[in-house]
Order: sequence, then C-alpha cells, then structure tokens
Amino acid sequence: MDKLNDTLSELKEQNQNLLEWKRKLSLILEYSGKISAATDLSEILKVITDETKDVLQADRCSVFLVDKKKDELFSWVAHGLGKRQIRFPKSTGLAGAAVVTGETINVKDAYNDERFNPEIDQKTGYFTKTILCIPMKNRQGETIGVFQVLNKLDGVFAEQDAEMLRLLATQAAGIIENAMLYEEMKKSFKSFINTLAEAVDARDPLTAGHSSRVCSYAVLIAQKMGYSEKEIERLQYAALLHDLGKIGVKEGVLTKPGRLDEKEYSHIQTHTSVTRKILEQTYFKKEFKDIPLMASSHHEKVDGTGYPQNLKGEKIPEVSRIMAIADVFDALTSKRHYRGPMPLQKVFSILKEETGRKFDPVCMEAFFKLDLWDVMKVMFEREEKPSSETVSAKLKGVTLQELLRKFQDGVKDDIIENVAQYYSRLIDEG
Amino acid sequence: MDKLNDTLSELKEQNQNLLEWKRKLSLILEYSGKISAATDLSEILKVITDETKDVLQADRCSVFLVDKKKDELFSWVAHGLGKRQIRFPKSTGLAGAAVVTGETINVKDAYNDERFNPEIDQKTGYFTKTILCIPMKNRQGETIGVFQVLNKLDGVFAEQDAEMLRLLATQAAGIIENAMLYEEMKKSFKSFINTLAEAVDARDPLTAGHSSRVCSYAVLIAQKMGYSEKEIERLQYAALLHDLGKIGVKEGVLTKPGRLDEKEYSHIQTHTSVTRKILEQTYFKKEFKDIPLMASSHHEKVDGTGYPQNLKGEKIPEVSRIMAIADVFDALTSKRHYRGPMPLQKVFSILKEETGRKFDPVCMEAFFKLDLWDVMKVMFEREEKPSSETVSAKLKGVTLQELLRKFQDGVKDDIIENVAQYYSRLIDEG
Repeated sequence: MDKLNDTLSELKEQNQNLLEWKRKLSLILEYSGKISAATDLSEILKVITDETKDVLQADRCSVFLVDKKKDELFSWVAHGLGKRQIRFPKSTGLAGAAVVTGETINVKDAYNDERFNPEIDQKTGYFTKTILCIPMKNRQGETIGVFQVLNKLDGVFAEQDAEMLRLLATQAAGIIENAMLYEEMKKSFKSFINTLAEAVDARDPLTAGHSSRVCSYAVLIAQKMGYSEKEIERLQYAALLHDLGKIGVKEGVLTKPGRLDEKEYSHIQTHTSVTRKILEQTYFKKEFKDIPLMASSHHEKVDGTGYPQNLKGEKIPEVSRIMAIADVFDALTSKRHYRGPMPLQKVFSILKEETGRKFDPVCMEAFFKLDLWDVMKVMFEREEKPSSETVSAKLKGVTLQELLRKFQDGVKDDIIENVAQYYSRLIDEG
Repeated sequence: MDKLNDTLSELKEQNQNLLEWKRKLSLILEYSGKISAATDLSEILKVITDETKDVLQADRCSVFLVDKKKDELFSWVAHGLGKRQIRFPKSTGLAGAAVVTGETINVKDAYNDERFNPEIDQKTGYFTKTILCIPMKNRQGETIGVFQVLNKLDGVFAEQDAEMLRLLATQAAGIIENAMLYEEMKKSFKSFINTLAEAVDARDPLTAGHSSRVCSYAVLIAQKMGYSEKEIERLQYAALLHDLGKIGVKEGVLTKPGRLDEKEYSHIQTHTSVTRKILEQTYFKKEFKDIPLMASSHHEKVDGTGYPQNLKGEKIPEVSRIMAIADVFDALTSKRHYRGPMPLQKVFSILKEETGRKFDPVCMEAFFKLDLWDVMKVMFEREEKPSSETVSAKLKGVTLQELLRKFQDGVKDDIIENVAQYYSRLIDEG
C-alpha cells in the first residue's frame, strides 16, 4: 500500500512536469506559426519576446541584436503608434556581459550585481529584481544578439528556464538571420535602383535628382489617396525606374540647349518603350508584375493622346497617372536647357488647365491636397532646406489648394512672401 | 483499493499520452532550429519532410507546392548528388484532391480509392498502403501546397496524426512563403542586373552581350580555381556590373569607328571609376562589400600599370584578375569598330605574352585548363550553337592548353579544323 502510494505520488509529480512541458511546447508551437508569418524584423522580434514572456512566465523580455560595424546592441521599442530603434554600446549591463562572455547570466537580485546597469530602471521607473540573459548564437557559433528576461512572475529563474530559453534563442537565431538576409537583399535592390536612377539622370546635369524627386512627389500623392504600404513600395520602384530607358537616348538630344525638332522629339520619346523593354526582361514577383507597364506609362494622357501606347483614362495604370503629375511638376519647377524654373503660380495653372486632358482629376485633387511644406522639402532636397523654425511654422498645414487660391485672389501675405522667397532661389539659379 | 488502482491506471495512460506529446513537440522544436537555419527552398522542404516522417512515424513524406501560373504541383527529389524538380497537373491523385477541395484526406487502403494515382508506385516499385494528405494554407487561407505522408509504420493514420500534421503544415506555410519571397527577391535583383548590363552593352551594338559573356567566362575560370557557390555568386554580380559605368561614356566615343585618340581614350577609361562610384552608393551586405572594388578593377594590370588605381599584383582583387582575362578574351574574340574578331591562335599568344605583365599567371593557368567546348558554348551564345553531335564529341574534353599546343606544333587535325570552321563564322560576320 505504501509502495502503491509512492508510485502514485511519483506519477503525479511526473505528470505535473509533463503537463508543464506540454504547456511550454504547445505555446512555442503556437508562436512559431506567428513568427514565420511575420514579415519584418521588428515584428518578428515582437512575437519572439511575447513568446518568451509567456513560456518563461516572466514580466518583461527584450531581444537585442549585435551591430558588428558599430559595436553596439540595438532593438526596437513601441513608440506611439510606431516603433523606435534604441542602441547602446555592446558591453553595457548584464545583457552586454552575456554578449561579451557568450555565457548565460542568471541573477537573483539585479541591484546586488555590479554589472547591472540601473540607468534604464531610473528612466522608466521600472524595478528589476531577477534577470536572465542568454546570448543568441547562429550556426557558425557567432553571437548575433542576446535575450534579456526580467522578473520571473513566481520566484527566481531556474536552470530549466535557462534551458528553455537557450532552445528559444537557437530557434530565434535562424529566423532572425533569415529576416535580416531578406531585409538586406531588399535594401540592396532598392539602393541599387536608386543610384542607378541617379546615374541615368546625371547624364544630363539639369535632370540630376529628377527620378528621386518624382518618386517622392508620387509617394506623397499616393499616401493622400490612401495607398497601402505594399502599394507604395511598388509605386516607388516604378517611379524610380520611369526614366531608365534614357540610357538609350543620345546625349546630343538629351542635353540639347534649345527646343527639340520633330525627329529629336520622337527619338527622346523612345525612352518610355526602352524602359518598358528593360523592365519586362526583369523577373518581378506577382505583386510587382505591373511595374514595367506602370513605369513606362508616365507620358500617357487621360484623353488618349499620350505615348507610347495612346492609353486612355483608366487603361492607364493609376500609379502612372500619379507619376504623370509628379513628373510634370518636377520638370516645370526645375531648370531646363531652354528655360528656367517656372513660377509656382504658372505651374499650378498649367496643371489645372490640363486636368481632364492630360491629367487624371482624382489624382490631381489629391495633389492639391498636399501640404505645401512637404512639397517644398522635396523640391529643395538637392540643396539647403528652408529650415528656419518660423518659416516652417508658417508654411506647415497650408495645402497647395490654399496656396493656389491665394494666388488667384491676389493675396500678398506672409505665406505667399515666404514661398516666393524660397522659390526665387530656384529661379535665381536657373 | 479498486479506486486507487483506477486512478493509477488513469494516470499511467495520461502519462503515456503526455510522453508521446513531449516526444512529438520536442522533435518539432529540434527541427525548427534546422528549418530556420536552412537557406534554400529545396533544403527547407527536405528538413520539413524528414521532420514530418519522424513526428508521424511514417515511411515517406513529400511536400508539393502549387505553381499558380501553370496550375501544377511541384517538388524536388534527390537525384544523384543533386536534386531534380518534378511537376504534375494540380489535380493529380490524392494530393491533388486535397489541394482542390482544401480538405484533409486520410485513406486506409490507397488501391481501394479511385482518386489514388498508382503511376508513381508503378515507376518506383514502391507500395503505398495508407496515405494522409493535408493542404498547406497561408495566412490568407490560400492553399499553397500539400503534405502527402505515406505508410504509417504502425497501423493507420489517426485523427491525432492529422491534427499534428495540420499544425506542422501551418508552421511550414510561413517558412516556405518567406523562403519563396527571398528567392524571388534575389531572382529579381539578379535579372534586373542582367537586363541592365544588356542595356548598357547595347548602347554600342558591337558590345551587345559582352557583360554576360564576360560573366560566363569568369565563372568557368573561378570554378576551375575551386571557388565556392557564394564566391561565384559575388563574382557574377561583379562581372555583370563591370561596365555599368559606360552609362556615363559619350556614345560618340563609345561607338567611334576607328582608333581612339588620347583624349577619347582617357574619357572611356572613366567608366571604371563611374562603375565604382555607382556601386559604392549601393548598399551591399557584408559578404558583398567588395563588389564595387571588384567590378571596377578589371582594367588593373598585375605589374601596376593598369587603371583606375594602378593597383599591383595581389592588391588587385582576385575576382578582378579573373575578370581581366575574361574581359580581354571576349573583346579579342568579338568584332570591334576598328577590327574583326581575332583568330584564336593570335588571341592565345597575346594572352600568354601578357601573362605576368597584365594578367595573373595563376588565373591564366586556370583559364587554359578550361574545356574548349565550354568556352565555345559561351562564345556562340548569341547565335546558333555548334550542336552537331559529332563536333561536340570531338571537342569535348579538349582543353584550351591542348588547343594552344596544337597551334604551336602546327597540327592540322579534326579538332583544329572544327574549331576553325566554327570560329570562321565569327570572322566572316566581322
């Protein structure tokens, strides 16, 4: 009977342990679906830290990544509705000690450990008691980051917690490295496109920075029209690449100081079809399939008289209708071989006049809803920005539409004066 | 006493179940480290199918992915030391039925189910008895593939197996979609670079295809020198981009029909520093950091008399020393404005003569170890390939070194004749 009772309590204890295992592992499994579905690094880190808190039953968890170039640790923290990156020297505090030594650190009373850095507690009003830090290593054994778990809800961190956290860290290391790989590849591709666009623009000194500004104006309009982040990304590629076909235009035509004759004009028009040809030979994933058409249709007009395909109205991709406005706006507000930058008032009246013929009315409406200050920041990107506090305070919140009305009503107030003053720099240089 | 015994056996059973849970979940956790560390899709699928077999205790497992464009299912199977892609129409067999209906299919006797496709058994000599198929869905609920598990080792698949497999499939879906995203991004970037290089080459009709051929020759040499896959990838980027700076060269100079004067020659030389400038403004990940230097140093000479930096010997990246040979070899064997393609014998003697001055002896040694047939395939890429079986049989296995010796010894055999015959096409066109 005693023996039976012993067996019984032994089994019960075993059962208890196994139930705890099951709880932890089920949690991990549940999270692993969430992690693999996350698409960006800060989102992945958020899921991983939530997971760690739940599995280890702790109050807080942070994952810091090693920035090898700068010898720093960094992570993201929630900040308003977005997130903010935080950074500190690699060897700071207990997390830093775990990174430097590559060892697990399990401390029962943080304030009694001299490696502990109390500054963050002081800033945030938090009180750290127990702390578990585990370096996160990749396949090559390199430490790529550190897990820091604070305040076990019930007592102190046990060796079992450390073991579980090492498992989690190993799992996380691979996921994080893959996510970084993806982000790096995307960053490379984008930055290559960007410098390439600059190189193409630079064939004619007067169009330097054109593609990048068209891209910025187009993004502002698209945001006003409620585009999603993914749609904006696609628009950015299309906008940065819209003049790529100018690679094929003869520089004699490209940089001709004066109006182009008919033959030259039709030669320069070929840049749209060259853009399309180059991009059509490029492999794009499904969501990006329309980039060649989008990028190459920025000279189409809604009335069907544009080129290269005489597309009409909604046959022109909306992204191209947005780009058409951005493209003309940048061209008119920039110096050209045959003229200086045009005064804003005249630019606006040309845009208005051509709406419905060349430009899409809906996209144009979004354009005129833009903040004057946002537009001016793009316009002056290539040189010193209008940065005086008082000026920005005056121009912020004024829309292009309101500026247009002031022009039309002949108003001469502070805003008009400030705009004229900044704008005159472009004209003086022209 | 009876009650105690009941409790005991109940606890034992519960314990048994929990142990099985622990086994499965521990296995999954162990695999999840392996999966996240895998870098390409076929490797990931391999780990996932191994995992599924172990967790479900089944004899075989395959994961098929949906190719939406072609309405097919595809996967990879081991093939010799590599792997081969297999494909079939989307609705084939029980796996196809699971994809089409989106439902789990659990069959106890495959040959008694009319949806079962016995063809594969017939081909492989395998005997399928029990079969469990579960569609793999992504976050959006789209079916992106199907798990097919064959022959449960001990009996038939239970509902618990199906449940576990659904968990595995959910986990896998995210990982697979991320891997596909990464591969697509890489594919886009590479193909964009490729078409861009073509666009730059095409500014002069005579250099069409140059960058791509230089890349192919350089890869052949690097393979001979034992480069790893990663090193080859980096070399490909550098080689495809080496003439990117020609964007900035005036077409009057680029396409001048005749020898360049000194001023024109120094203008055309600027393309290397423009290549470097553009690539230095591009963000590259750590392993690719040297691409700007590599791509822009293809006109350096080992004796230090090259440009743009007069680098000497090992100061020139090895990749650039390889590219220098590939670049000159392609230039000499192609038509130029001021001459036709040069006979191979003369090309070889120029390369030999310049070894130690312009070219690196070690890289040149690797070049002369190349298979004549591999080189000719690249050379004729732009037109009809020498495809006659007898010719390829004769030329295969002959190295450039052996051909050179025949030239030197004045041998006039089948090989020399065949080479001359094919090569004469280039000269005729020149």
